[in-house]
Amino acid sequence: MGNDDTTNVSLQDLRTTLHAALFRAGCDSENADAVASVMAAADGDGCASHGVFRLAGYLASLKSGKVNGQTRPSVARLAPAVIRVDGRGGFAPLAMNAAREALAPVVREQGIAAAALVNVHHFSALWVDIEPLVEAGLVAMCFTAYMPAVAPAGARKPFFGTNPMAFGWPRADGGTLIFDQASAAMARGDIMIAAREGHTLPPGVGLDKTGDPTTDPREILQGAQLTFGGYKGSAIAMMVELLAAGLIGQPFSFEAGEEDNHDGGPPRGGVLLLASDPQKFGDAAGWLEHSEAFLRRLSGLDDVRLPGDRRAKNRERIAREGARLPAKLWADAVNAARSPG
Amino acid sequence: MGNDDTTNVSLQDLRTTLHAALFRAGCDSENADAVASVMAAADGDGCASHGVFRLAGYLASLKSGKVNGQTRPSVARLAPAVIRVDGRGGFAPLAMNAAREALAPVVREQGIAAAALVNVHHFSALWVDIEPLVEAGLVAMCFTAYMPAVAPAGARKPFFGTNPMAFGWPRADGGTLIFDQASAAMARGDIMIAAREGHTLPPGVGLDKTGDPTTDPREILQGAQLTFGGYKGSAIAMMVELLAAGLIGQPFSFEAGEEDNHDGGPPRGGVLLLASDPQKFGDAAGWLEHSEAFLRRLSGLDDVRLPGDRRAKNRERIAREGARLPAKLWADAVNAARSPG
Repeated sequence: MGNDDTTNVSLQDLRTTLHAALFRAGCDSENADAVASVMAAADGDGCASHGVFRLAGYLASLKSGKVNGQTRPSVARLAPAVIRVDGRGGFAPLAMNAAREALAPVVREQGIAAAALVNVHHFSALWVDIEPLVEAGLVAMCFTAYMPAVAPAGARKPFFGTNPMAFGWPRADGGTLIFDQASAAMARGDIMIAAREGHTLPPGVGLDKTGDPTTDPREILQGAQLTFGGYKGSAIAMMVELLAAGLIGQPFSFEAGEEDNHDGGPPRGGVLLLASDPQKFGDAAGWLEHSEAFLRRLSGLDDVRLPGDRRAKNRERIAREGARLPAKLWADAVNAARSPG
Repeated sequence: MGNDDTTNVSLQDLRTTLHAALFRAGCDSENADAVASVMAAADGDGCASHGVFRLAGYLASLKSGKVNGQTRPSVARLAPAVIRVDGRGGFAPLAMNAAREALAPVVREQGIAAAALVNVHHFSALWVDIEPLVEAGLVAMCFTAYMPAVAPAGARKPFFGTNPMAFGWPRADGGTLIFDQASAAMARGDIMIAAREGHTLPPGVGLDKTGDPTTDPREILQGAQLTFGGYKGSAIAMMVELLAAGLIGQPFSFEAGEEDNHDGGPPRGGVLLLASDPQKFGDAAGWLEHSEAFLRRLSGLDDVRLPGDRRAKNRERIAREGARLPAKLWADAVNAARSPG
């Protein structure tokens, strides 16, 4: 048990409850399982912004009929090194499972390959999406757009989505090095949490609705987020739009914002997943130890922390102790799972 | 003619002079032509930091024998979608020409493919390297490491190179949208120019040699540059190291720094070039107009400028008026081209 405001929940209880809530709201068991897994994985790694915190959005999109909780993805090979996975209007996790399963053997054969996920509703953390590929020894990258939330450098209104990109590199111990970062200076989920908890934010995170800088998370949620690193982060956000929307025929963030019913859940959109097999790039015998030497040097510098280090520590602790969740959030999830339909 | 400190030089004169200087210093004609072209292209686009400003470094590396000015790259196909181009100790431009030529048909066949350039000495702007692929209708990305110059987030000493990445997207008019940005907050060439010209720099660009923040470009050149956008730019810099060195069996920046003879020219290293054919990603009929609509919206926002806009304007003006170069720099180039061997 936690204090009055939080409660500890085992990951097994979390998954079971999320599954039940999704199932009750209209997901079939396979979809409920896949969606519950990505949320539980986020809370299991201490990433509150992508865990049970997202359940209300998932449920709203089932209730509104925007998302089909009973659909199955279809897989097509568009070219020797390009796969398309059509999510057919469902949540992304089942399509992502299918994409990884189809992509991995193609990558091992071709050296590098891409999977374009289309017609999915993506609401999860990208590191969860790529981790199994990286654990299988592949280098992976992943990109997705969203709905307008971020002002491009030089603009005063939202136009880009938060547009995360993830990159993963296999480690010698079978683990992974993964970063998963929004093009925004701060993840929107973290701003939502700050707004809920009444914290102010550092300068540079966002603009109010008139386009002026502010540190109030509620004003930023009404206004615009800013990209990390000014125009360079803005260029990354633009690249993500072009890869996850322009290249694969899916809505840009501004289009998703126009098309979406704004029920609080994820819009229809695309995800681009790239993977490479380091055994096929000319240093099959050496790449792993060579990169380990680099990472040892890097992590030995002053106060450097490798991306994912905190997640790995959280994972170990939370597997043991359970996830500490806001009590109200957990009560809502339990209620969604149990109350009659 | 410019004023006392600068002089206008036609791009034809610039290329001829650069070619002659490189030839006199030991390049054969084909290498001299390729290297002169990338320098002239940079000055032709108003990018002083990668133009004739780099000649001294190229010449020093020929003089020291670090770089072979008479070598030819070899091309091998490591997997259906992976090419390796071995520069065999030469400057990168000839190898880059060979890589583009080999890669383009593979990309059109496979949908996505990679070229690993190895054993090259890379000293040019990346946008010059990818522009021909993008003009041919392909989406391209490019990554390269260098020598330690940039402190990772949390470190006080250089460890990463400036580690640029470039991304290019084809435009409907046959032109390109390309960004080419160092993972450093500022390109090292621009810091070198500021040091030469005695300017101070904004906060956040670098650290002095004890690891404390400074705005003096000379102190930063002795100390460490910082990444753009804090830990997120640092993650990008790490990714560039892993792609341009770890994946393809080439020196990481810290290894290049240890191996290099510090003659002022570029170290031996690798470049990773990725390209995709948007005709093979499921929206062959629509992707170009769809992305144009996005770019029209984006460029119409407030004070937004698309990456490369300034280069395109510079290119038109400089083709007409010539490049305005520091008079001393040009005099040195002319001298290198003309004086007896």
